[in-house]
Amino acid sequence: MERPDAPPDVVIRRLPLYARSLRYLLEEGVHSVSSQELGERINVTAAQIRKDLSYFGEFGKQGIGYDVEKLLNHIDHILGLTHHWPLVVVGVGSLGQAIARYDGFQTQGLRIVGLFDSDPDKIGQMVDDLTIMDYSRLHAVISEHQARLAVIAVPATRAQEVADMLIEAGIRAILNYAPIILQTPDDVWVRYIDPVAVMHSLTYYLAREQGGAEVKRR
Amino acid sequence: MERPDAPPDVVIRRLPLYARSLRYLLEEGVHSVSSQELGERINVTAAQIRKDLSYFGEFGKQGIGYDVEKLLNHIDHILGLTHHWPLVVVGVGSLGQAIARYDGFQTQGLRIVGLFDSDPDKIGQMVDDLTIMDYSRLHAVISEHQARLAVIAVPATRAQEVADMLIEAGIRAILNYAPIILQTPDDVWVRYIDPVAVMHSLTYYLAREQGGAEVKRR
Repeated sequence: MERPDAPPDVVIRRLPLYARSLRYLLEEGVHSVSSQELGERINVTAAQIRKDLSYFGEFGKQGIGYDVEKLLNHIDHILGLTHHWPLVVVGVGSLGQAIARYDGFQTQGLRIVGLFDSDPDKIGQMVDDLTIMDYSRLHAVISEHQARLAVIAVPATRAQEVADMLIEAGIRAILNYAPIILQTPDDVWVRYIDPVAVMHSLTYYLAREQGGAEVKRR
Repeated sequence: MERPDAPPDVVIRRLPLYARSLRYLLEEGVHSVSSQELGERINVTAAQIRKDLSYFGEFGKQGIGYDVEKLLNHIDHILGLTHHWPLVVVGVGSLGQAIARYDGFQTQGLRIVGLFDSDPDKIGQMVDDLTIMDYSRLHAVISEHQARLAVIAVPATRAQEVADMLIEAGIRAILNYAPIILQTPDDVWVRYIDPVAVMHSLTYYLAREQGGAEVKRR
């Protein structure tokens, strides 16, 4: 099969979903799964799963399926989740607090090592067992933990400035919740979570339906 | 130019980003913008913008660029954002509260008309000016407001059951924050926001870098 050297980003984005499904299966006591069964759980075809995984080697046996635990370990290894990644969160409004409290950010290969805000009233307050710190501490905390990951949860007007500070301090990958596209160097990864934009893409389809136009769904 | 009848979903997902950038430009007092300038703000090429917009008609003039306000109005119209869309939020933990408090969900064409939770201790409490209601009120509130949009912010173990209730009550488009893929009828749209999965796709690239492998960035 012809195959480029590096798996495309869309494959990398699906791997965590495979891993999560495998984790759920393991919790349910399921130890073997076919690509068909795994696919049905995540609305991906069996062929897609096999193709995605083929970038990383040979998994599963024809007619037998995948060993759930082995495949999960493989994917965790591919994703670098064999150890915990320290990360910092900047902006501790309602959203930043929700992130700090969400155990998915404190387990599953991630560990929040610093919460930061510019509001003097918030600094020193605790969110669970983390203390909110001033931006002046950013550099030291990032260096100390060798953090490479950050979450930005500040308003749009402050996000670029915060991104610049983070990158200056050594951050190489950013999850940005602020509704603005960041300008960053080529060696920094940025992903966006933008619920309002997602909602607006849904209203498009709902509006078409109400207008009587034919719409194809995914 | 050859062109399918319906614009692909990836184009629909970019339209809200164009609209937001245009809104920012308008706030800055900018009334005319080239596809080049608009593209730089959102890391999209000028050619891509022109191609995306060409699905919906003729916009802008060669050498003059786009009238910011006109183009924004056009896109808002395309996205169905000429009126407010009522939506309900199910699950009022830290995340649900952050959503309820985020003004992006209360302006910009969206309006939360109901907050729901199954926890008796939460029911009757207020989040800003919204009262948290019991699931038993879901059907009535969705009917009354003719809501078609919902946000699911409950734990993964409850999400499918909540989705079933919502769809039964008339919801046609769901933004799901629960870390699980929902099984839904073909005539229901579902989008996912999954920050931990996004983080895990970033650790992949960071792990590659640390391993010394060459990585191409977007």
